[in-house]
Amino acid sequence: MFKKLVAEFIGTFWLVLGGCGSAVLAAAFPEVGIGLLGVSLAFGLTVVTMAYAIGHISGCHLNPAVTVGLWSGGRFPAADVVPYILAQVLGAIVGAFVLYIIASGQAGFELAGGLASNGYGEHSPGGYTLMSGFVTEFVMTFMFLIVILGATHKLATPAMAGLAIGLALTLIHLISIPVTNTSVNPARSTGPALMVGDWAVAQLWLFWLAPLLGALVAGIVYRWLSPQDDD
Amino acid sequence: MFKKLVAEFIGTFWLVLGGCGSAVLAAAFPEVGIGLLGVSLAFGLTVVTMAYAIGHISGCHLNPAVTVGLWSGGRFPAADVVPYILAQVLGAIVGAFVLYIIASGQAGFELAGGLASNGYGEHSPGGYTLMSGFVTEFVMTFMFLIVILGATHKLATPAMAGLAIGLALTLIHLISIPVTNTSVNPARSTGPALMVGDWAVAQLWLFWLAPLLGALVAGIVYRWLSPQDDD
Amino acid sequence: MFKKLVAEFIGTFWLVLGGCGSAVLAAAFPEVGIGLLGVSLAFGLTVVTMAYAIGHISGCHLNPAVTVGLWSGGRFPAADVVPYILAQVLGAIVGAFVLYIIASGQAGFELAGGLASNGYGEHSPGGYTLMSGFVTEFVMTFMFLIVILGATHKLATPAMAGLAIGLALTLIHLISIPVTNTSVNPARSTGPALMVGDWAVAQLWLFWLAPLLGALVAGIVYRWLSPQDDD
Amino acid sequence: MFKKLVAEFIGTFWLVLGGCGSAVLAAAFPEVGIGLLGVSLAFGLTVVTMAYAIGHISGCHLNPAVTVGLWSGGRFPAADVVPYILAQVLGAIVGAFVLYIIASGQAGFELAGGLASNGYGEHSPGGYTLMSGFVTEFVMTFMFLIVILGATHKLATPAMAGLAIGLALTLIHLISIPVTNTSVNPARSTGPALMVGDWAVAQLWLFWLAPLLGALVAGIVYRWLSPQDDD
Repeated sequence: MFKKLVAEFIGTFWLVLGGCGSAVLAAAFPEVGIGLLGVSLAFGLTVVTMAYAIGHISGCHLNPAVTVGLWSGGRFPAADVVPYILAQVLGAIVGAFVLYIIASGQAGFELAGGLASNGYGEHSPGGYTLMSGFVTEFVMTFMFLIVILGATHKLATPAMAGLAIGLALTLIHLISIPVTNTSVNPARSTGPALMVGDWAVAQLWLFWLAPLLGALVAGIVYRWLSPQDDD
Repeated sequence: MFKKLVAEFIGTFWLVLGGCGSAVLAAAFPEVGIGLLGVSLAFGLTVVTMAYAIGHISGCHLNPAVTVGLWSGGRFPAADVVPYILAQVLGAIVGAFVLYIIASGQAGFELAGGLASNGYGEHSPGGYTLMSGFVTEFVMTFMFLIVILGATHKLATPAMAGLAIGLALTLIHLISIPVTNTSVNPARSTGPALMVGDWAVAQLWLFWLAPLLGALVAGIVYRWLSPQDDD
Repeated sequence: MFKKLVAEFIGTFWLVLGGCGSAVLAAAFPEVGIGLLGVSLAFGLTVVTMAYAIGHISGCHLNPAVTVGLWSGGRFPAADVVPYILAQVLGAIVGAFVLYIIASGQAGFELAGGLASNGYGEHSPGGYTLMSGFVTEFVMTFMFLIVILGATHKLATPAMAGLAIGLALTLIHLISIPVTNTSVNPARSTGPALMVGDWAVAQLWLFWLAPLLGALVAGIVYRWLSPQDDD
Repeated sequence: MFKKLVAEFIGTFWLVLGGCGSAVLAAAFPEVGIGLLGVSLAFGLTVVTMAYAIGHISGCHLNPAVTVGLWSGGRFPAADVVPYILAQVLGAIVGAFVLYIIASGQAGFELAGGLASNGYGEHSPGGYTLMSGFVTEFVMTFMFLIVILGATHKLATPAMAGLAIGLALTLIHLISIPVTNTSVNPARSTGPALMVGDWAVAQLWLFWLAPLLGALVAGIVYRWLSPQDDD
């Protein structure tokens, strides 16, 4: 079990360092920056790479919402939910810290820039309301879990699951970065928020509530949709 | 059968919310927008993700033209064509509605912007004629079905079919967004058009006619090209 | 055999319509154009999609240099080389013609823009010399064939070959569009050149000579590198 | 063994020509340049394409840090480490030379532009300090090896390893080009540096030290994390 938690720690560390790192370091680089498309790809690739690297160790959740959705879908034991979530949040915090170390090595760096924290209202990248943010995070996490539960189903194609799931995260970012900077992952939201403090911590509740709710419902829906699962 | 229809509903909901959503919310975001390349990727990834998530439930058509092409290619029973199409159109409408809910949470949002509806003539993104639009939609849907019929053929590589088919949709968007905003899918056209009304509904006929014709012909051609299919 | 040639015709039609089409229609679309990155992706995806669609019918060469390289690598019968090349060139011409039909539906379209023809010297996109163009086309085609011969080798991973080969074409375009607009495929060069005439036809010789030479040498080198091939 | 070394030579030649080539030739092409996103994709695709082309010949390391990490992870014999590294460095030098031949065919080309060499401090693309550069190169190479060791593990999905590993390199570039121009590969750094001389050679030590250290530690960590490896 300890090795599983270390794997979740490393993987979530990578998700935050890679995803938020690409946003902070490279998205708006003058003239040749990678933009929101590059950031979307980076977030997805953290999952693709880890899925094939540690999937056989811990299942590669990297996300409390994924852990909760797999539990509500009947695929993950209740007893392991809390330890997994703790390992993920810890990995996310260390990932945000290492990103801060690297990013602060550039003259003019300001932590107030947000370190790619999630937000709504005046802290939404495109100025979207709390309502838009809630709907977005709920629906995106719901669909993320539908993809995860479907692609890892025994009748699906297991070899491709890691790719499909990672690319689902890319897709979700392509749609929703302007709305909330895209969370669908409470751990990913927590790491940068703790570094930035202030508004990022004050708005953090939404990025625990909406993803966890979306994941919970998705687990129930998919279980009904695919009853062969119970065999 | 009901679960198959629910799967088609969810999948087409995702195609419209994800594809049109990326276009409406993120394509032209200031300085770091994802552009037509990001939108093309998003449309393709809705299919890639759903193919691995619900392919084993409903076959993951998400598109009346695909359903018709598979029927004309001898791969899908006639009796299921209409129910599938109804589920797809319903999913597309709900997808467009949820997108409207999210997008309208930004100050200054205007539905008249089109919600990524398809169009020709003065409503073509690049001002292309009806003739160009018809040829584009016919040929693109024809080739889309050739890829679908080929990649799901029993002599092909089934594990890769979802990826190849989704990336075919990305490719089609890379080519043809400037011409018609790219349909190749009557359901995807209908969702946003019903929300926008006006010209979008008036031009909707083309995005049923051309894709369905292209798909119909592709089914016939591929059946001839690959006779082993009949074994 | 006739069906194989039809498959090669359709596939090369798609390569030219899709690859050159994305360049002509979408690369420089105002503000949200797909750029050279999108064009590179489009060329690669024509091969990925066709590889899984028609690979089991004709082997999916779509390119006289590929056909020659497979022959010189001992993987393709000499008697089929010329028919394959004829089918490919014909497909490329029809692809360029359909692209012309679509593109000319926009006010202000000028065929003199080049229809994504290949060129060197003053017709190189970045103004590169004939020497740079020759080295580029020779080396890129050489490496393209190394990837093709390697990825389709019986000790490699056959299911992934189509993806690896298509992405190799994407990579080649990411490197070399500025030098020659990237050919590595005499058929792809011939289609647009015949529509444009003039300089495009006058410079066409290079895009037959360099790719065929590169492919020929690659076949010989790979055969030596991987002798198990002869078993 | 000689053929393995030739394969490593060709592969590392391709990594430098393709990765650095896309940066030098296409990244900043006026209006439609591929940007850092395109360069990131190009580096990754050199590995994806070679993994499927020569993976069955030499294992496709293309990188002294990979060779060292596989050795420290107990997957590669000590006796072959030095020959592999020599072949890789030689391939990188020839790759940089061929890139110079091509790039110098454009009027106004200046070698002082750097040929995509790696650097820190005033030679970091974004002006990041030596400290940021060291942390970045160490952590990125550490994670690169975790992906490599994990994805090639016998309990993982061997068919997907080449894709996951190549995309890991893309991800690493998406994050870290602004910091050091991204090395994680001493051979890739050495090729362009020898052509450029001056500051590029003076700073080369960092791009041997940090990647090799990161790889060494990753080998040890992964070995502990995944003890089934020892069976």
